[in-house]
Amino acid sequence: MLNIETIYDAAKVLKEAARKTDLILSKTLLEGNEIYLKSENLQVTGSFKLRGAYYKISKLTQEQKSRGIIACSAGNHAQGVALAAQKNGIKAAIFIPATAPISKVEATRKYGAEIKLIDGVYDDAYKAACEYQKETGGVFIHPFDDEDVIAGQGTIGLEVLEQLPDVDDVVVPIGGGGLISGIAYAIKQLKPSCKIYGVQAQGAGSMYQSFLNKKILELPVVHTFADGTAVKRPGNLTFELCSKYVDDIVTVTDDEIASAILTLMEKQKLVAEGAGALSVAAVMFNKLPVSNKKTACIVSGGNIDVNILSRVINRGLLKTGRLSHLTIELLDKPGQLKEVSAIIAEYGANVIRVRHNQGGENTDINDCFLKISMETKNSEHFEEIQQALMRKGYRIASNVQ
Amino acid sequence: MLNIETIYDAAKVLKEAARKTDLILSKTLLEGNEIYLKSENLQVTGSFKLRGAYYKISKLTQEQKSRGIIACSAGNHAQGVALAAQKNGIKAAIFIPATAPISKVEATRKYGAEIKLIDGVYDDAYKAACEYQKETGGVFIHPFDDEDVIAGQGTIGLEVLEQLPDVDDVVVPIGGGGLISGIAYAIKQLKPSCKIYGVQAQGAGSMYQSFLNKKILELPVVHTFADGTAVKRPGNLTFELCSKYVDDIVTVTDDEIASAILTLMEKQKLVAEGAGALSVAAVMFNKLPVSNKKTACIVSGGNIDVNILSRVINRGLLKTGRLSHLTIELLDKPGQLKEVSAIIAEYGANVIRVRHNQGGENTDINDCFLKISMETKNSEHFEEIQQALMRKGYRIASNVQ
Repeated sequence: MLNIETIYDAAKVLKEAARKTDLILSKTLLEGNEIYLKSENLQVTGSFKLRGAYYKISKLTQEQKSRGIIACSAGNHAQGVALAAQKNGIKAAIFIPATAPISKVEATRKYGAEIKLIDGVYDDAYKAACEYQKETGGVFIHPFDDEDVIAGQGTIGLEVLEQLPDVDDVVVPIGGGGLISGIAYAIKQLKPSCKIYGVQAQGAGSMYQSFLNKKILELPVVHTFADGTAVKRPGNLTFELCSKYVDDIVTVTDDEIASAILTLMEKQKLVAEGAGALSVAAVMFNKLPVSNKKTACIVSGGNIDVNILSRVINRGLLKTGRLSHLTIELLDKPGQLKEVSAIIAEYGANVIRVRHNQGGENTDINDCFLKISMETKNSEHFEEIQQALMRKGYRIASNVQ
Repeated sequence: MLNIETIYDAAKVLKEAARKTDLILSKTLLEGNEIYLKSENLQVTGSFKLRGAYYKISKLTQEQKSRGIIACSAGNHAQGVALAAQKNGIKAAIFIPATAPISKVEATRKYGAEIKLIDGVYDDAYKAACEYQKETGGVFIHPFDDEDVIAGQGTIGLEVLEQLPDVDDVVVPIGGGGLISGIAYAIKQLKPSCKIYGVQAQGAGSMYQSFLNKKILELPVVHTFADGTAVKRPGNLTFELCSKYVDDIVTVTDDEIASAILTLMEKQKLVAEGAGALSVAAVMFNKLPVSNKKTACIVSGGNIDVNILSRVINRGLLKTGRLSHLTIELLDKPGQLKEVSAIIAEYGANVIRVRHNQGGENTDINDCFLKISMETKNSEHFEEIQQALMRKGYRIASNVQ
């Protein structure tokens, strides 16, 4: 069974492969609070997954190593396993669904792993990996439900306690539960008064539901853009550890995750993936009783496709009222564009796009629409501008695009 | 005159205000090289500017402090001065051109400074600041041409030597030259064998030109999206220090800067602004003799407007061949879309948008255009796909959008 000595042993082993990531104080994420970010997005391979994979592999026997290792993942686990295998000089076959982004496949290939691209989704790749395991006798590295993997992730708990001995609570993203199991176990052994909170995406709350119902539940479908956490069923071991050592689990929406990603980029200059931003989203949107506490948020990874990042930026800007779209119905008479522009300027918003359309199919022939996109300070600021326009008699047709 | 004791003194003073930022090893930025990133984008206020401003302000007399301080900036210097003043409990008036992005104005305001938004551009704000200085007798904090400011920035040099004693070269972005002056001075005193390289944006190479010509030159116009470095004339003091202690200065293009920003986001999970990415751009695009060396790149800041980041991502993806656009002339007959799609799929590119247009105004009535946007691995990969299409008889009309 997992014990603290194993986690200390993992910390010793990991010195040769993993970075002791910085714990970065942010005073701006939650007004009046000291929020510390454990920057595992800056870990080698871009996520914490290297820790567990590397420690697991280091503990294999020579005979097991000679048979090679196998993993199935479209994401961080793939990169963690691939690099861990490379550093240990052993062969790795990584099964990846063909739908995975090119960037993730290439990153894994660069660490020297043999890539098996499998048509279909994760389940198809997993099936192929299992068949391959039977054929070759290689060692399958589970992404979370494994004691050594959990011990590896637990080293983050040791580091947080060392970097911030008077930490009050630690907030941890949950997918399958390997990360939080290791951290919660380590911290509760060494500082039982420290609270451990888990965070899942609303659309993939398998551990949340299981924790609430005190038994393992399998979700029929999971959907979130925190794709690293889209797990239908928690592990047996991780569920047991969470039940024992985690104080509470909450969920956040995809919009809240997008806002957190944006905030991390803007204020902290850190790129986080959806899963990586879960902890920060929970704190920002007041899901947890952390006010006036010293809170460490684990930013677990940063492997987000940059094409998706562009979209997240826009979504986040809209959600926080930093980018606002407005459609105004105008009578098609002169001077209205000028007047509307003047009102917006007076309130200090920055217009970035204007489209002026002569009616739609269902409008009066004289009607005209003005669609304006502008940079605003926040939702209240945008509301003020709308009120000012309405006081001048303008009809706001809609504020979404 | 500047001396190493002053820089040590600055380091002592800065312990209470600035972070000792992490030096992060990257093995992927330049194949086969150890590139270390000094992450000043993770500094409090998002850039190194806090160091110089804080140290400068700490050395003012009580009488000077009581008169308040004044600065003029649309960017990092504004935030650095504002926070430094707040922490010292003194009044700051920051003059900002009204054209500055809302995000930067709001960030500066949050540090408690009085914001003077001045209609026009930087020069107008500077003029207003000078008038205000005469009226109030406040202390004007120069962004770079000041010994104490330079000593503050020099503390980065001390930290690099401590974090990586066997560093071979240090690559530093240049705007007005304050950052490189401090770092070069500190390092050449303590480890003269270490090379110091400066990098400027091609469109704003005032120090580059002055260094080359061995006299201060003023550029008539500067234009770069590394806006933090758009300085027309180097400082007198910074020019003197660069002439003495800097080994070479090179320039990079805006496209190279965009690629570097993208690479830092994707591979290192760090958000850098244009100025902050200059050093990495110079290394990535082989402008410097750093192969087989231990090279520290100063990533000086991360305050980039997120609206601009979206555009940088796209530009960077295009430049590195990760996003490719292709326009193919088709005869308007059945089955061609299918065949083109099959060829692209066979080569492993990921189609993200297709537009199928029946001719333009200047084409034959039977002609038809297929515009395809796809994720590709790199420029060679895209070239292979084009070759394959041409072998099948397709005419590539253009590969830009």
